[in-house]
Amino acid sequence: MQAQLIALDWGTTSLRAYLLGSAGQVLKERTLACGIMQLPGTPRLVAGQWCADGFELAFDDACGDWLDAHPGVPVIACGMVGSAQGWCEAPYRQTPASLNALSTALQTVRSVRGVDLHIVPGVIQRSTLPNVMRGEETQVLGVLESFPQLNDCLIGLPGSHSKWVQVQDGNLVHFDTFMTGELYAAACEHTILGRTQQRSAQFDSAAFDRGVQVALSPDGRLGPLSTLFSARTLGLTGQLSATQQPDYVSGLLIGHELSALGGAVRERRGGASMPTIILIGNSRLCERYQRALAACGFADVRLAQQATEQGLWHLAQAAGLLRHMQLEG
Amino acid sequence: MQAQLIALDWGTTSLRAYLLGSAGQVLKERTLACGIMQLPGTPRLVAGQWCADGFELAFDDACGDWLDAHPGVPVIACGMVGSAQGWCEAPYRQTPASLNALSTALQTVRSVRGVDLHIVPGVIQRSTLPNVMRGEETQVLGVLESFPQLNDCLIGLPGSHSKWVQVQDGNLVHFDTFMTGELYAAACEHTILGRTQQRSAQFDSAAFDRGVQVALSPDGRLGPLSTLFSARTLGLTGQLSATQQPDYVSGLLIGHELSALGGAVRERRGGASMPTIILIGNSRLCERYQRALAACGFADVRLAQQATEQGLWHLAQAAGLLRHMQLEG
Repeated sequence: MQAQLIALDWGTTSLRAYLLGSAGQVLKERTLACGIMQLPGTPRLVAGQWCADGFELAFDDACGDWLDAHPGVPVIACGMVGSAQGWCEAPYRQTPASLNALSTALQTVRSVRGVDLHIVPGVIQRSTLPNVMRGEETQVLGVLESFPQLNDCLIGLPGSHSKWVQVQDGNLVHFDTFMTGELYAAACEHTILGRTQQRSAQFDSAAFDRGVQVALSPDGRLGPLSTLFSARTLGLTGQLSATQQPDYVSGLLIGHELSALGGAVRERRGGASMPTIILIGNSRLCERYQRALAACGFADVRLAQQATEQGLWHLAQAAGLLRHMQLEG
Repeated sequence: MQAQLIALDWGTTSLRAYLLGSAGQVLKERTLACGIMQLPGTPRLVAGQWCADGFELAFDDACGDWLDAHPGVPVIACGMVGSAQGWCEAPYRQTPASLNALSTALQTVRSVRGVDLHIVPGVIQRSTLPNVMRGEETQVLGVLESFPQLNDCLIGLPGSHSKWVQVQDGNLVHFDTFMTGELYAAACEHTILGRTQQRSAQFDSAAFDRGVQVALSPDGRLGPLSTLFSARTLGLTGQLSATQQPDYVSGLLIGHELSALGGAVRERRGGASMPTIILIGNSRLCERYQRALAACGFADVRLAQQATEQGLWHLAQAAGLLRHMQLEG
């Protein structure tokens, strides 16, 4: 089958590469531990030239063979590769941001093999407290193409830094960030809470739900700085076992995130009903968020798949990168 | 001058020893890095007996020479030495807790030299989310003796785990814990926020106050999981320098703590005016809390000194430990 596009999701710690076919379907896919903070360091020949640049080496590792097999195929990338610490900075575009706005702002860098890499810009919201994303904007656009009937929704991207993106008529109009995942890890690994915890391979949904309920309860009004200590005191008083504590803390923090988010969404929407939620991400983490969202009164929650590769495909299409190949095909 | 009491503040990481005179004044004082989690490990002779017990060794290091010089002087201790991981567990006493209740519940352990160590119990509040303290109860009692005219106040003990203790008529009736200090350290050292921070020896009061104001602002309603990310984005957009970021984050977290505390206090007191606040602790940290408390509408804030040694002195007195020595003196 004719390859139409190489799409790269190039983040801080990993680089995922997709070879996409004529309708955007995934022909091949691979993941490398070559994020921009851990690039290859051993110089070698690339396309006949001696090369020591980590970005060039990682790029060649990710898709050199695909480029050899499909000469002329265009390449697009999103994520931290476009940051100030990336291969080539693709400056942030402001909200409101749309497929058209982002696709006309791709930043290009030419690799040593003469191939252009088109980099998607991140998005900035210049509110009193600014907010930024890089990579998530592409996932959001991918979701919008999969759910074309939605013109008012909230897209959640749980993770180290959870993003909640409000979309209206195809525009990313507002977003918030919560450092929930990273603070969860820091609290469990680098505070007293870790001392009494025991990790378990199995998800303890009851402990998780209990944490969510505490966050939503009157006790939760003291906020996570205070409620987190209950993981210790419930343990000390025999009400929470060592293996229950990690999922309880996870429920607490996700509960606080969604309780605060729910309040802000209600305030922004006045009397209007709660928006449809679409979640993108790791399926285990999305399961946790689904449970907690239900407890917070979000009734309509859906899951999206293949958001990144779909977003990159539609951005390449809107930018006119696919035209030449399609004529050829 | 006649020594009347040896008073030990024996925590997780350090052991502070006081030799107190006839009116409770400090005659001598020393600090050792012999908290219960880092006890000495090299066996040696103690009072003529071969000894390998870390508690015995630390005890001898802390006050063996004082015990030799003042035979028969009583010894009292507070802090984690009375926890389940301590030398001898002094089970928690429930709120409401008073000087009398705690002084009649001292737990005794006899050292290898035949000297009894009297250990002050911690305090537990058996609310839906239980709360515990060990050591802070002694500081609170010390403060109450220094401010006898106060019968309704809130005592704040900022630190890794800040405690806020509501006192009425000499009783510790309610308290809350915030893991602010420990989460601050974890956020700065083990999340992305640390990457753009630069430590400075000087306190940047403007950056700190800005963090407090953000926590108290409408943006602060999203809670610390969200506002913390602004330390990064304000840095990215050139609005907060690398050296300002640590104090900004400190202000954010202390602001969230005090905003939540203020809300809870107002709710508990109905229409009554805000209570007098007394702060105990490290003077630099108390200075931060004073600034933030003023911003949160707490008008009457005072600082207490020598709370631990005063608390231990009054507990020993109430327990009758000083009687014999006083008759002798």
